[in-house]
Amino acid sequence: MRTLFIFSCFVLFLFFPCGSLISGQTLTTSSDDGAKVAIEHVLRTQQEAWNRHDIESFMQGYWNSPKLTFFSGATAHEGWQATIERYRSRYTSPGHEMGKLDFSGLRIEVLGADAAFVRGSWLLTMPDGKTPHGLFTLVFRKFPEGWKIVHDHTSAAE
Amino acid sequence: MRTLFIFSCFVLFLFFPCGSLISGQTLTTSSDDGAKVAIEHVLRTQQEAWNRHDIESFMQGYWNSPKLTFFSGATAHEGWQATIERYRSRYTSPGHEMGKLDFSGLRIEVLGADAAFVRGSWLLTMPDGKTPHGLFTLVFRKFPEGWKIVHDHTSAAE
Repeated sequence: MRTLFIFSCFVLFLFFPCGSLISGQTLTTSSDDGAKVAIEHVLRTQQEAWNRHDIESFMQGYWNSPKLTFFSGATAHEGWQATIERYRSRYTSPGHEMGKLDFSGLRIEVLGADAAFVRGSWLLTMPDGKTPHGLFTLVFRKFPEGWKIVHDHTSAAE
Repeated sequence: MRTLFIFSCFVLFLFFPCGSLISGQTLTTSSDDGAKVAIEHVLRTQQEAWNRHDIESFMQGYWNSPKLTFFSGATAHEGWQATIERYRSRYTSPGHEMGKLDFSGLRIEVLGADAAFVRGSWLLTMPDGKTPHGLFTLVFRKFPEGWKIVHDHTSAAE
Protein backbone atom coordinates (compact mmCIF):
# COMPACT_ATOMS: atom_id res chain seq x y z
CA MET A 1 0.00 0.00 0.00
CA ARG A 2 2.85 2.38 0.75
CA THR A 3 4.18 1.96 -2.81
CA LEU A 4 0.71 2.68 -4.17
CA PHE A 5 0.43 5.84 -2.06
CA ILE A 6 3.86 7.15 -3.11
CA PHE A 7 3.17 6.39 -6.75
CA SER A 8 -0.20 8.11 -6.76
CA CYS A 9 1.34 11.17 -5.08
CA PHE A 10 3.93 11.24 -7.87
CA VAL A 11 1.26 11.03 -10.59
CA LEU A 12 -0.77 13.77 -8.92
CA PHE A 13 2.35 15.95 -8.68
CA LEU A 14 2.96 15.51 -12.42
CA PHE A 15 -0.53 16.76 -13.20
CA PHE A 16 -0.76 19.50 -10.60
CA PRO A 17 -0.19 22.33 -13.11
CA CYS A 18 -3.32 21.22 -14.96
CA GLY A 19 -5.43 22.08 -11.94
CA SER A 20 -4.07 25.62 -12.01
CA LEU A 21 -4.76 25.97 -15.72
CA ILE A 22 -8.32 24.77 -15.38
CA SER A 23 -9.07 27.24 -12.62
CA GLY A 24 -7.33 30.03 -14.57
CA GLN A 25 -9.34 29.31 -17.67
CA THR A 26 -12.89 28.52 -16.78
CA LEU A 27 -13.63 30.27 -13.52
CA THR A 28 -13.32 33.80 -12.24
CA THR A 29 -10.32 33.44 -9.98
CA SER A 30 -7.92 35.58 -8.05
CA SER A 31 -5.60 35.40 -11.08
CA ASP A 32 -8.38 37.07 -13.14
CA ASP A 33 -8.49 39.82 -10.52
CA GLY A 34 -4.70 40.17 -10.77
CA ALA A 35 -4.94 40.45 -14.56
CA LYS A 36 -7.65 43.12 -14.28
CA VAL A 37 -5.57 45.18 -11.85
CA ALA A 38 -2.51 44.89 -14.12
CA ILE A 39 -4.49 45.85 -17.25
CA GLU A 40 -6.19 48.81 -15.60
CA HIS A 41 -2.73 49.94 -14.46
CA VAL A 42 -1.52 49.87 -18.11
CA LEU A 43 -4.46 52.09 -19.12
CA ARG A 44 -4.07 54.55 -16.24
CA THR A 45 -0.34 54.79 -17.02
CA GLN A 46 -1.24 55.55 -20.66
CA GLN A 47 -3.71 58.24 -19.58
CA GLU A 48 -1.10 59.91 -17.34
CA ALA A 49 1.51 59.77 -20.12
CA TRP A 50 -0.93 61.36 -22.58
CA ASN A 51 -1.77 64.13 -20.13
CA ARG A 52 1.87 65.11 -19.77
CA HIS A 53 2.04 64.99 -23.61
CA ASP A 54 4.49 62.08 -23.66
CA ILE A 55 3.47 59.96 -26.66
CA GLU A 56 6.51 57.64 -26.37
CA SER A 57 5.47 56.60 -22.84
CA PHE A 58 1.80 56.40 -23.90
CA MET A 59 2.89 53.95 -26.60
CA GLN A 60 4.49 51.64 -24.00
CA GLY A 61 1.00 50.23 -23.45
CA TYR A 62 1.03 48.79 -26.98
CA TRP A 63 2.78 45.62 -28.17
CA ASN A 64 5.95 46.83 -29.91
CA SER A 65 5.48 44.64 -32.96
CA PRO A 66 4.71 44.92 -36.67
CA LYS A 67 1.71 42.70 -35.81
CA LEU A 68 0.05 45.33 -33.60
CA THR A 69 -3.13 46.57 -35.28
CA PHE A 70 -5.01 49.84 -34.83
CA PHE A 71 -8.46 50.20 -36.42
CA SER A 72 -10.23 53.52 -36.77
CA GLY A 73 -12.98 54.40 -39.25
CA ALA A 74 -12.15 52.36 -42.36
CA THR A 75 -8.38 52.55 -41.81
CA ALA A 76 -6.29 49.68 -40.44
CA HIS A 77 -2.86 50.76 -39.23
CA GLU A 78 -0.48 47.81 -39.16
CA GLY A 79 2.32 47.79 -36.60
CA TRP A 80 3.61 49.83 -33.67
CA GLN A 81 5.42 52.30 -35.95
CA ALA A 82 2.33 53.08 -38.03
CA THR A 83 0.34 53.51 -34.82
CA ILE A 84 2.72 56.03 -33.22
CA GLU A 85 2.88 57.91 -36.54
CA ARG A 86 -0.92 58.14 -36.59
CA TYR A 87 -0.93 59.58 -33.07
CA ARG A 88 1.85 62.03 -33.94
CA SER A 89 0.14 63.25 -37.11
CA ARG A 90 -3.27 63.65 -35.44
CA TYR A 91 -2.23 65.11 -32.11
CA THR A 92 1.20 66.74 -32.34
CA SER A 93 1.08 68.55 -35.67
CA PRO A 94 0.52 72.33 -35.72
CA GLY A 95 -3.04 73.12 -34.64
CA HIS A 96 -3.63 69.59 -33.33
CA GLU A 97 -2.93 69.48 -29.61
CA MET A 98 -3.17 66.41 -27.40
CA GLY A 99 -5.57 67.95 -24.88
CA LYS A 100 -6.57 66.15 -21.69
CA LEU A 101 -7.53 62.48 -21.98
CA ASP A 102 -10.01 60.62 -19.78
CA PHE A 103 -10.82 56.93 -19.98
CA SER A 104 -14.10 55.87 -18.36
CA GLY A 105 -16.51 52.97 -18.15
CA LEU A 106 -13.72 50.39 -18.34
CA ARG A 107 -14.98 46.82 -18.57
CA ILE A 108 -12.09 44.35 -18.44
CA GLU A 109 -12.95 40.74 -19.34
CA VAL A 110 -10.33 38.04 -18.91
CA LEU A 111 -10.50 35.46 -21.73
CA GLY A 112 -7.73 33.06 -20.66
CA ALA A 113 -4.42 32.90 -18.81
CA ASP A 114 -2.77 35.31 -21.27
CA ALA A 115 -5.65 37.11 -23.00
CA ALA A 116 -8.26 39.73 -22.12
CA PHE A 117 -10.29 42.47 -23.75
CA VAL A 118 -11.40 45.88 -22.59
CA ARG A 119 -14.42 47.97 -23.51
CA GLY A 120 -14.33 51.63 -22.61
CA SER A 121 -14.97 55.27 -23.46
CA TRP A 122 -12.48 58.04 -24.23
CA LEU A 123 -12.92 61.78 -23.96
CA LEU A 124 -10.51 64.53 -24.95
CA THR A 125 -10.88 68.03 -23.57
CA MET A 126 -9.12 70.35 -26.00
CA PRO A 127 -7.66 73.80 -25.32
CA ASP A 128 -10.40 75.36 -27.51
CA GLY A 129 -13.12 73.72 -25.39
CA LYS A 130 -14.04 71.03 -27.93
CA THR A 131 -14.59 67.54 -26.51
CA PRO A 132 -14.08 64.79 -29.11
CA HIS A 133 -15.11 61.45 -27.61
CA GLY A 134 -15.97 57.89 -28.45
CA LEU A 135 -15.49 54.23 -27.66
CA PHE A 136 -12.67 51.71 -27.81
CA THR A 137 -12.18 47.97 -27.78
CA LEU A 138 -8.73 46.70 -26.81
CA VAL A 139 -7.40 43.15 -27.01
CA PHE A 140 -4.61 42.47 -24.51
CA ARG A 141 -2.11 39.61 -24.44
CA LYS A 142 0.27 38.84 -21.58
CA PHE A 143 3.96 38.85 -22.53
CA PRO A 144 7.04 38.23 -20.34
CA GLU A 145 7.25 42.04 -19.98
CA GLY A 146 3.58 42.32 -18.96
CA TRP A 147 0.13 42.93 -20.47
CA LYS A 148 0.18 44.81 -23.79
CA ILE A 149 -2.48 45.96 -26.27
CA VAL A 150 -2.21 43.83 -29.42
CA HIS A 151 -5.27 45.33 -31.14
CA ASP A 152 -7.07 48.65 -30.71
CA HIS A 153 -10.38 49.55 -32.36
CA THR A 154 -11.30 53.16 -31.69
CA SER A 155 -14.32 55.10 -32.92
CA ALA A 156 -15.50 58.66 -32.43
CA ALA A 157 -18.89 60.37 -32.27
CA GLU A 158 -20.15 60.62 -35.85
CA MET B 1 1.94 -4.55 -9.48
CA ARG B 2 -1.38 -5.09 -11.23
CA THR B 3 -3.13 -3.01 -8.54
CA LEU B 4 -0.56 -0.27 -9.04
CA PHE B 5 -1.09 -0.31 -12.82
CA ILE B 6 -4.87 -0.17 -12.55
CA PHE B 7 -4.71 2.61 -9.98
CA SER B 8 -2.32 4.72 -12.05
CA CYS B 9 -4.54 4.25 -15.13
CA PHE B 10 -7.45 5.52 -13.04
CA VAL B 11 -5.50 8.60 -11.86
CA LEU B 12 -4.38 9.35 -15.42
CA PHE B 13 -7.97 9.00 -16.64
CA LEU B 14 -9.11 11.53 -14.02
CA PHE B 15 -6.62 14.09 -15.27
CA PHE B 16 -6.85 13.39 -18.99
CA PRO B 17 -8.99 16.46 -19.76
CA CYS B 18 -6.18 18.67 -18.44
CA GLY B 19 -3.95 17.64 -21.31
CA SER B 20 -6.52 18.84 -23.80
CA LEU B 21 -6.91 22.14 -21.99
CA ILE B 22 -3.18 22.79 -21.92
CA SER B 23 -2.82 22.19 -25.64
CA GLY B 24 -5.90 24.30 -26.33
CA GLN B 25 -4.54 27.21 -24.36
CA THR B 26 -0.86 27.64 -25.01
CA LEU B 27 -0.09 26.25 -28.44
CA THR B 28 -1.47 26.60 -31.92
CA THR B 29 -3.16 23.24 -32.24
CA SER B 30 -5.60 21.42 -34.39
CA SER B 31 -8.31 22.60 -31.97
CA ASP B 32 -7.34 26.20 -32.89
CA ASP B 33 -7.86 25.27 -36.52
CA GLY B 34 -11.23 23.77 -35.63
CA ALA B 35 -12.21 26.96 -33.81
CA LYS B 36 -11.19 29.08 -36.81
CA VAL B 37 -13.25 26.97 -39.19
CA ALA B 38 -16.27 27.15 -36.87
CA ILE B 39 -15.95 30.93 -36.42
CA GLU B 40 -15.54 31.60 -40.13
CA HIS B 41 -18.63 29.46 -40.69
CA VAL B 42 -20.61 31.69 -38.29
CA LEU B 43 -19.55 34.77 -40.27
CA ARG B 44 -20.25 33.26 -43.69
CA THR B 45 -23.67 32.15 -42.41
CA GLN B 46 -24.31 35.74 -41.25
CA GLN B 47 -23.29 37.11 -44.63
CA GLU B 48 -25.63 34.73 -46.46
CA ALA B 49 -28.50 35.57 -44.09
CA TRP B 50 -27.93 39.31 -44.67
CA ASN B 51 -27.91 38.85 -48.41
CA ARG B 52 -31.32 37.16 -48.38
CA HIS B 53 -32.45 40.05 -46.12
CA ASP B 54 -33.08 37.78 -43.13
CA ILE B 55 -32.02 39.82 -40.08
CA GLU B 56 -33.33 37.23 -37.58
CA SER B 57 -30.99 34.57 -39.01
CA PHE B 58 -28.16 37.11 -39.27
CA MET B 59 -28.61 37.77 -35.54
CA GLN B 60 -28.09 34.06 -34.73
CA GLY B 61 -24.35 34.78 -34.89
CA TYR B 62 -24.66 36.98 -31.81
CA TRP B 63 -24.90 35.85 -28.18
CA ASN B 64 -28.59 36.12 -27.28
CA SER B 65 -27.98 37.91 -24.00
CA PRO B 66 -28.51 41.31 -22.37
CA LYS B 67 -24.71 41.25 -21.94
CA LEU B 68 -23.99 41.34 -25.69
CA THR B 69 -22.43 44.69 -26.60
CA PHE B 70 -22.34 46.49 -29.95
CA PHE B 71 -20.10 49.57 -30.29
CA SER B 72 -20.37 51.97 -33.20
CA GLY B 73 -19.19 55.60 -33.26
CA ALA B 74 -19.75 56.85 -29.72
CA THR B 75 -22.82 54.65 -29.13
CA ALA B 76 -22.76 51.45 -27.06
CA HIS B 77 -25.78 49.24 -27.64
CA GLU B 78 -26.31 46.90 -24.69
CA GLY B 79 -27.92 43.53 -25.33
CA TRP B 80 -29.16 41.39 -28.19
CA GLN B 81 -32.50 43.21 -28.37
CA ALA B 82 -30.90 46.66 -28.68
CA THR B 83 -28.56 45.28 -31.35
CA ILE B 84 -31.32 43.83 -33.55
CA GLU B 85 -33.30 47.07 -33.16
CA ARG B 86 -30.26 49.06 -34.34
CA TYR B 87 -29.99 46.84 -37.44
CA ARG B 88 -33.74 47.11 -38.10
CA SER B 89 -33.79 50.89 -37.77
CA ARG B 90 -30.70 51.41 -39.96
CA TYR B 91 -31.36 48.85 -42.66
CA THR B 92 -35.05 47.96 -42.87
CA SER B 93 -36.78 51.29 -42.48
CA PRO B 94 -38.18 53.03 -45.58
CA GLY B 95 -35.30 54.27 -47.78
CA HIS B 96 -32.73 52.19 -45.89
CA GLU B 97 -32.21 48.89 -47.68
CA MET B 98 -29.91 46.09 -46.55
CA GLY B 99 -27.97 45.88 -49.82
CA LYS B 100 -25.38 43.20 -50.46
CA LEU B 101 -22.87 42.48 -47.69
CA ASP B 102 -19.29 41.27 -48.14
CA PHE B 103 -16.88 40.41 -45.35
CA SER B 104 -13.20 40.34 -46.32
CA GLY B 105 -9.71 40.23 -44.82
CA LEU B 106 -10.84 38.02 -41.94
CA ARG B 107 -8.10 37.45 -39.36
CA ILE B 108 -9.26 34.99 -36.70
CA GLU B 109 -7.04 34.73 -33.61
CA VAL B 110 -7.79 32.08 -31.01
CA LEU B 111 -7.17 33.38 -27.46
CA GLY B 112 -8.01 30.28 -25.43
CA ALA B 113 -10.14 27.16 -25.41
CA ASP B 114 -13.37 29.20 -25.46
CA ALA B 115 -12.33 32.65 -26.71
CA ALA B 116 -11.20 34.24 -29.97
CA PHE B 117 -11.32 37.56 -31.76
CA VAL B 118 -11.74 38.50 -35.39
CA ARG B 119 -10.49 41.50 -37.36
CA GLY B 120 -12.12 42.16 -40.70
CA SER B 121 -13.60 44.53 -43.26
CA TRP B 122 -17.22 44.98 -44.31
CA LEU B 123 -18.61 46.41 -47.52
CA LEU B 124 -22.22 47.06 -48.44
CA THR B 125 -23.24 47.51 -52.07
CA MET B 126 -26.50 49.44 -52.06
CA PRO B 127 -29.21 49.51 -54.75
CA ASP B 128 -28.30 53.16 -55.52
CA GLY B 129 -24.66 52.18 -56.14
CA LYS B 130 -23.29 53.59 -52.88
CA THR B 131 -20.74 51.43 -51.08
CA PRO B 132 -20.56 52.18 -47.36
CA HIS B 133 -17.65 50.22 -45.85
CA GLY B 134 -15.44 49.94 -42.83
CA LEU B 135 -13.82 47.67 -40.27
CA PHE B 136 -14.97 45.44 -37.41
CA THR B 137 -13.54 43.76 -34.35
CA LEU B 138 -15.51 40.83 -32.96
CA VAL B 139 -14.94 38.96 -29.70
CA PHE B 140 -16.23 35.40 -29.79
CA ARG B 141 -16.89 33.01 -26.88
CA LYS B 142 -17.68 29.32 -27.20
CA PHE B 143 -21.00 28.26 -25.68
CA PRO B 144 -22.64 24.81 -25.54
CA GLU B 145 -24.58 25.89 -28.68
CA GLY B 146 -21.39 26.97 -30.47
CA TRP B 147 -19.25 30.07 -31.07
CA LYS B 148 -21.13 33.39 -30.69
CA ILE B 149 -20.18 37.06 -30.96
CA VAL B 150 -20.24 38.59 -27.45
CA HIS B 151 -18.91 42.00 -28.53
CA ASP B 152 -18.92 43.82 -31.87
CA HIS B 153 -17.07 47.07 -32.57
CA THR B 154 -17.89 48.38 -36.03
CA SER B 155 -16.69 51.56 -37.70
CA ALA B 156 -17.30 53.12 -41.09
CA ALA B 157 -15.30 55.31 -43.45
CA GLU B 158 -15.37 58.82 -42.01
